[in-house]
Amino acid sequence: MTRRAVVLLSGGLDSATVLAIARQDGYECHTLSLDYGQRHRSELEAAAALSPLLGAASHSVVKLDLTLFGGSALTDAALAVPTDGAALDAGDTIPITYVPARNTIMLSLALARAETLNANDLFFGANAVDYSGYPDCRPEYVAAFEAMANLATRAAVEGARLTVHAPIIQLSKAQIIARGHALGVDYGRTVSCYQADAAGRACGLCDSCRLRRAGFEAAGLPDPTRYQPRA
Amino acid sequence: MTRRAVVLLSGGLDSATVLAIARQDGYECHTLSLDYGQRHRSELEAAAALSPLLGAASHSVVKLDLTLFGGSALTDAALAVPTDGAALDAGDTIPITYVPARNTIMLSLALARAETLNANDLFFGANAVDYSGYPDCRPEYVAAFEAMANLATRAAVEGARLTVHAPIIQLSKAQIIARGHALGVDYGRTVSCYQADAAGRACGLCDSCRLRRAGFEAAGLPDPTRYQPRA
Repeated sequence: MTRRAVVLLSGGLDSATVLAIARQDGYECHTLSLDYGQRHRSELEAAAALSPLLGAASHSVVKLDLTLFGGSALTDAALAVPTDGAALDAGDTIPITYVPARNTIMLSLALARAETLNANDLFFGANAVDYSGYPDCRPEYVAAFEAMANLATRAAVEGARLTVHAPIIQLSKAQIIARGHALGVDYGRTVSCYQADAAGRACGLCDSCRLRRAGFEAAGLPDPTRYQPRA
Repeated sequence: MTRRAVVLLSGGLDSATVLAIARQDGYECHTLSLDYGQRHRSELEAAAALSPLLGAASHSVVKLDLTLFGGSALTDAALAVPTDGAALDAGDTIPITYVPARNTIMLSLALARAETLNANDLFFGANAVDYSGYPDCRPEYVAAFEAMANLATRAAVEGARLTVHAPIIQLSKAQIIARGHALGVDYGRTVSCYQADAAGRACGLCDSCRLRRAGFEAAGLPDPTRYQPRA
């Protein structure tokens, strides 16, 4: 029997790798993107293109206006995206690019989608290494969400067991890239930049670009990222 | 110091009572409604009117198209709203009016709003008595969501303790009505009907109407609900 999974796909490097892993694990994958008013719109276009390329069975986009909540440089135009390497510091401060409750909201929507599809598996690209300051990227958070989800749904009441997979949570960026490379992920199609242009070209300066570039270097692989031309 | 709370307000009888309870408990209340494509739109208008009437400090509406997920008679126009009293049977079947993961999604949005407001309290109108078939209306579900939320947010990492209040979860409809009546809630302004008309008048036939009408009878209070004229 085909096992069905819902895979959160942002269009970035991490979630593309997670989709490739879920496919290799034999799941029929249904991808879900959240249009939460992010400033970097080309990420959503990348997700829509990557989904069939990586063998997903369907792709859905849920539109939700999180800008109402403000508070993050990724949604609030009044806050500058940091380019000083702040996200690279594995300290205990939470980066300004943190979106309030984002993973909880995204996993909740994935849970609704899973229930509609009779899927018992959710995959998402949380990473506790690069995003050490994000509370909702930690293994204990993922376990708590899974416990809650197993009390939340019709399927759970009827005896199904829902599993939340975070297969790259303990991997470094270089390890993620090596894994995806081995699975044939075309990282030139992914968009990680916090301020990519309309064509999906990366700024090369923001924290996300720095993490990504360093990852390719550490993995010893060529960086296929398309960068914006410099003046 | 003023304690701030986010209160999920649907416009129905239960959540209006919860708001009145939160106000009596001394919280500065910020109400949140979810526009999830529900067929009974007048419920949302009732929420916007009730929020200031019951003393809330702000009201927000988050628009989220759950119709994408289908599966419930409350969002899917292809499914009929049951009028045969199915929701009155306190059995172990889940009513067709169940919306996949709805409370999880609503609480997640409330969590995001709370984080933006520096609020440490969420209130919602889950009820385990009338909605015994809904998995996400049970006390163990509420506790699991609270545990997850306390691992999910910046505030939690920084030491705050988030509490999810479900003050009417163990009350009968009659007890809820008696409580709200004592607190001065004008139930004529609330809309519970699954198929209310544009003016907010109730059908009197759906399961929600039956539960509500029986509640006023059991409480020994006049039913102020505005009903649609019968042909």
